[in-house]
Amino acid sequence: MVGIIMGSDSDLPIMKQAAEILDEFGVEYELTIVSAHRTPERMVEYAQSARSRGLKIIIAGAGGAAHLPGMVASLTSLPVIGVPIKSSNSIDGWDSILSILQMPNGIPVATVALNAAKNAGIMAARMIGAFEDEIAKRVGIYQVNLKKAVEEKIDLVKKDFPNSFDKQ
Amino acid sequence: MVGIIMGSDSDLPIMKQAAEILDEFGVEYELTIVSAHRTPERMVEYAQSARSRGLKIIIAGAGGAAHLPGMVASLTSLPVIGVPIKSSNSIDGWDSILSILQMPNGIPVATVALNAAKNAGIMAARMIGAFEDEIAKRVGIYQVNLKKAVEEKIDLVKKDFPNSFDKQ
Amino acid sequence: MVGIIMGSDSDLPIMKQAAEILDEFGVEYELTIVSAHRTPERMVEYAQSARSRGLKIIIAGAGGAAHLPGMVASLTSLPVIGVPIKSSNSIDGWDSILSILQMPNGIPVATVALNAAKNAGIMAARMIGAFEDEIAKRVGIYQVNLKKAVEEKIDLVKKDFPNSFDKQ
Amino acid sequence: MVGIIMGSDSDLPIMKQAAEILDEFGVEYELTIVSAHRTPERMVEYAQSARSRGLKIIIAGAGGAAHLPGMVASLTSLPVIGVPIKSSNSIDGWDSILSILQMPNGIPVATVALNAAKNAGIMAARMIGAFEDEIAKRVGIYQVNLKKAVEEKIDLVKKDFPNSFDKQ
Amino acid sequence: MVGIIMGSDSDLPIMKQAAEILDEFGVEYELTIVSAHRTPERMVEYAQSARSRGLKIIIAGAGGAAHLPGMVASLTSLPVIGVPIKSSNSIDGWDSILSILQMPNGIPVATVALNAAKNAGIMAARMIGAFEDEIAKRVGIYQVNLKKAVEEKIDLVKKDFPNSFDKQ
Amino acid sequence: MVGIIMGSDSDLPIMKQAAEILDEFGVEYELTIVSAHRTPERMVEYAQSARSRGLKIIIAGAGGAAHLPGMVASLTSLPVIGVPIKSSNSIDGWDSILSILQMPNGIPVATVALNAAKNAGIMAARMIGAFEDEIAKRVGIYQVNLKKAVEEKIDLVKKDFPNSFDKQ
Amino acid sequence: MVGIIMGSDSDLPIMKQAAEILDEFGVEYELTIVSAHRTPERMVEYAQSARSRGLKIIIAGAGGAAHLPGMVASLTSLPVIGVPIKSSNSIDGWDSILSILQMPNGIPVATVALNAAKNAGIMAARMIGAFEDEIAKRVGIYQVNLKKAVEEKIDLVKKDFPNSFDKQ
Amino acid sequence: MVGIIMGSDSDLPIMKQAAEILDEFGVEYELTIVSAHRTPERMVEYAQSARSRGLKIIIAGAGGAAHLPGMVASLTSLPVIGVPIKSSNSIDGWDSILSILQMPNGIPVATVALNAAKNAGIMAARMIGAFEDEIAKRVGIYQVNLKKAVEEKIDLVKKDFPNSFDKQ
Repeated sequence: MVGIIMGSDSDLPIMKQAAEILDEFGVEYELTIVSAHRTPERMVEYAQSARSRGLKIIIAGAGGAAHLPGMVASLTSLPVIGVPIKSSNSIDGWDSILSILQMPNGIPVATVALNAAKNAGIMAARMIGAFEDEIAKRVGIYQVNLKKAVEEKIDLVKKDFPNSFDKQ
Repeated sequence: MVGIIMGSDSDLPIMKQAAEILDEFGVEYELTIVSAHRTPERMVEYAQSARSRGLKIIIAGAGGAAHLPGMVASLTSLPVIGVPIKSSNSIDGWDSILSILQMPNGIPVATVALNAAKNAGIMAARMIGAFEDEIAKRVGIYQVNLKKAVEEKIDLVKKDFPNSFDKQ
Repeated sequence: MVGIIMGSDSDLPIMKQAAEILDEFGVEYELTIVSAHRTPERMVEYAQSARSRGLKIIIAGAGGAAHLPGMVASLTSLPVIGVPIKSSNSIDGWDSILSILQMPNGIPVATVALNAAKNAGIMAARMIGAFEDEIAKRVGIYQVNLKKAVEEKIDLVKKDFPNSFDKQ
Repeated sequence: MVGIIMGSDSDLPIMKQAAEILDEFGVEYELTIVSAHRTPERMVEYAQSARSRGLKIIIAGAGGAAHLPGMVASLTSLPVIGVPIKSSNSIDGWDSILSILQMPNGIPVATVALNAAKNAGIMAARMIGAFEDEIAKRVGIYQVNLKKAVEEKIDLVKKDFPNSFDKQ
Repeated sequence: MVGIIMGSDSDLPIMKQAAEILDEFGVEYELTIVSAHRTPERMVEYAQSARSRGLKIIIAGAGGAAHLPGMVASLTSLPVIGVPIKSSNSIDGWDSILSILQMPNGIPVATVALNAAKNAGIMAARMIGAFEDEIAKRVGIYQVNLKKAVEEKIDLVKKDFPNSFDKQ
Repeated sequence: MVGIIMGSDSDLPIMKQAAEILDEFGVEYELTIVSAHRTPERMVEYAQSARSRGLKIIIAGAGGAAHLPGMVASLTSLPVIGVPIKSSNSIDGWDSILSILQMPNGIPVATVALNAAKNAGIMAARMIGAFEDEIAKRVGIYQVNLKKAVEEKIDLVKKDFPNSFDKQ
Repeated sequence: MVGIIMGSDSDLPIMKQAAEILDEFGVEYELTIVSAHRTPERMVEYAQSARSRGLKIIIAGAGGAAHLPGMVASLTSLPVIGVPIKSSNSIDGWDSILSILQMPNGIPVATVALNAAKNAGIMAARMIGAFEDEIAKRVGIYQVNLKKAVEEKIDLVKKDFPNSFDKQ
Repeated sequence: MVGIIMGSDSDLPIMKQAAEILDEFGVEYELTIVSAHRTPERMVEYAQSARSRGLKIIIAGAGGAAHLPGMVASLTSLPVIGVPIKSSNSIDGWDSILSILQMPNGIPVATVALNAAKNAGIMAARMIGAFEDEIAKRVGIYQVNLKKAVEEKIDLVKKDFPNSFDKQ
């Protein structure tokens, strides 16, 4: 349902976080490497066959002059979520962010925060959830769990700082 | 189907481009002003009722310290597309981009380029098109038309620069 | 008298410096976690009840797309001091600074330097000191002590660099 | 009650917005020019006499390498609100923002957004309102009016975009 | 001999400066529009046929998230010179510069200054001149003329500032 | 006594401000164009002969990738004051500032603010004034006049804002 | 055939990557240190004799206020490839990038990514390959090998993520 | 002859490099701590007495919102050399650079590179050398030694890369 691609295997530690959260949501996905600059033909094939292969959303991560998300978006009509990655010779991630975010009119990429592959997975689940109630329900539960995790931390912090604001 | 909101009426010249492109795609939408900082209760109500009111996607634009897209994302399980807007006292748009893009893990916003409300509309159409073939078809036609528009420009440029690469 | 809140327990090592300096000044405070994105209802309740619960000033710290200080400011008429925090995936802190600083006209946040929770506590004491002479006196003594600490360092440096400017 | 100072008369068109909003809130103020670099002795006198002359808060605006807010803060125990100003040879305002915001531990400046003298005035009113209910009430009314102004704009936008979210 | 391409006809006022300087050097070229995002197939064809069509160098200009130079470089073994263009919604040109410059190891793009299509043309002439003495000679003469133009300006300035350094 | 040089005659409107202020201080100077990139031999000659021709200080202004100040500094033992200039295709002046400021250990350039040729002239006068009392006196008077100019502005502002801080 | 120079021996770990890749391509080169600021005469001699000594391309790397590539370009008509290097006191590499990239009209430098000496070597091979088929062939094979290396990684990733896109 | 001051003892490891190079040049100096924000009166006294105490040049280093160099410059007519320091909570040094460099017209600071206290010392020696031949001679010898050190490195590099450019 979701295709997860990245420009290099060095992006895998970041990008597999998208896979893990989709596992949590019970959303099927495929994951592989597609390099805009080293395997451009593969990129074209991947993007052009994506819809017919049953994909609904593509998550694409890349660092530096990151062309993968934008090029894939130009070769499909599916929504593409871009994950900027702070790679070794990146300039603090600015190159990757701007290369993905600043797409020209006509070809959008849905960009998430630097290294935020997890959020890319959640965004994919939200997109699916807009049309499939079961997934929407799981996203809703996930948000409730985020809240509960904060509440547990609130209780922990209360031990050191008893003078606190009580939940109402 | 799509909710378009913005922090201020000064954002309307930008944000109505999202409405116009959705009109082109035949996607229904509502458009209004919701200010995170001046009408926070309205924002909460808007976001929390969005799904039950039948919205599938929210497009939220704001400038400066732009909190609207991220706050709405935290109050709904729908996908939220954020449009950074370069407002008058913005620092070249950096404030708006970073305030929308750099959301924490758990609550993603699908950010598009600075002032790119049109692309936000196209992204919404792509999201719907992933589940509704008719809309996907229209997005496909739109991309073909983008290509045709370039081809017309190619012919124009050829008049001044006849030594050129011919379409194949 | 002062409410100290932060978006995540990972901000605690920074934010407790605000508490420690308020302890030094003998200013009462409460400290807890309030997440704009994970506990938005709690944030609304916290901010809207702050004045009636006796708070005079709110110190809010957050990293990345930091919406907590600005959102709290929009929900109360109390002064809010914002502490930008350089969190793990922050872009050198720029995201947090701009998300807190660049508030629109009408809803100010008093922003301090990156990670400067200590300075946020001192600013709170100065605000109280403007109306309570005892606290002002303590702020004055604190500044004298800063000066004395520098003077001790001057004497230390003098051992290695005897050719120096003498206090007058 | 509030001292408004600026480094140059060229800052007046921005800085008088602080005065105007204080007029609206019925908060007394004085306004004058104090240059850190051209009248350093005047700056020292101004800051050191501020409390005894009855000031409770100082609002200081400056552009470029803006030293006025920080230097004044080091010479008084009153809270100082800093207004970064985008002057003619400024580098997009970054110089002014960083010169005011990034104060060392011990000497805070409450920084507001670029050119946001109006917000500096509102912040001063919030600080006073923490201790004087009448001013707090006025700040609260001001926020209600901000909301009402948005609501009027909502109605205007509704004329062109009737499909909209209704206030509840 | 040199292929000049650009992502959009709006880039023509900049990019034709490359053509004009190549005219001056007597270097043949072709010029056309190739959009990475709107005509991706054309881009692939253009790049893959470039060498066999007799091109020796490709000059590619684009703005925003500029993928054209890097993608073309990945599809040919010819040297590609990239021209970052400051387009209307660009963030001061940073997006275009970083998207072109920060290419990953293996696929270089020879980047010139923002909007410096003229310099791209001169760089192409230098590359050819490395192997064709006649073109090298013309580049040499061009540099001498640059020097002469400065010398004329030196004489002009001397009228107002007679106290000057004399050529030796 | 002071050599004023610039990379291009387009820098003259900025750089002649250095000449004008030196006129005011009664410091002799010469002014001419020396381009690091278009007249490199002239630059070498200029720098290497500077001391023997009686110069004591060199003021060098340039925009973009500004190499003139640093190269001249490497070719003389005289102090070189660098003036970054925001030229037409500069990236907000950052390129010029960093090219002049960030010199390697061993070869310093005394950098002043963007476009601040006037300050470069004043710095030259201060350097001379360290060794010639008459010039130091004039710099002192200049600073007193700066102060007086502010005081006149203070009086003007007082007309609109009578509630003010009185000179003491 | 290719001259590799750098401003300091501390740049050698980066710059020798240019030599290594040229070895791979069978392109002859020389490598040495030429400092713009510490050995300016050597730089002039190096650049002015480069063509007559048989060089076709110069690769110049430098950090901080990097003047070497631009100055060499001004002293030769050969193409110069500039390698920005992130040295110890560099400001995240911005200084080096802008000092090399933003050359004025007339004197281009072909800039590659930060620390990308390897890409500089590949760019030199591409330039030579434009005129020597044997080298072009090797660049082509290199690109095929890049692709093969990605394909091996694709197979590795497939072990953990079997649900993947198959090569076609 | 030279006064070296810094805002904090944490700046000493950087700033003592100015002292060490002045020792090498045989230039007398004093070194001490003067904090603009923690010892403002001491700063005023230091600056106002500097000339009468026999100082010819002041070197001032500070980090963050670095006000010391600019404030001292406003309180003396001596030349002030500013050293931006990248302190712990600095934003990559940008705050310190801009706070020192971007001084308003009338009050210049001669800024050197980030952390470049050594260059500040050399700049002071150059200033003195403009009027004292003996010091100028030593600066000249220092530059020759820089060149010799490079030449030794050239010989070392030659061992690994014998194909090199020979000194002429």
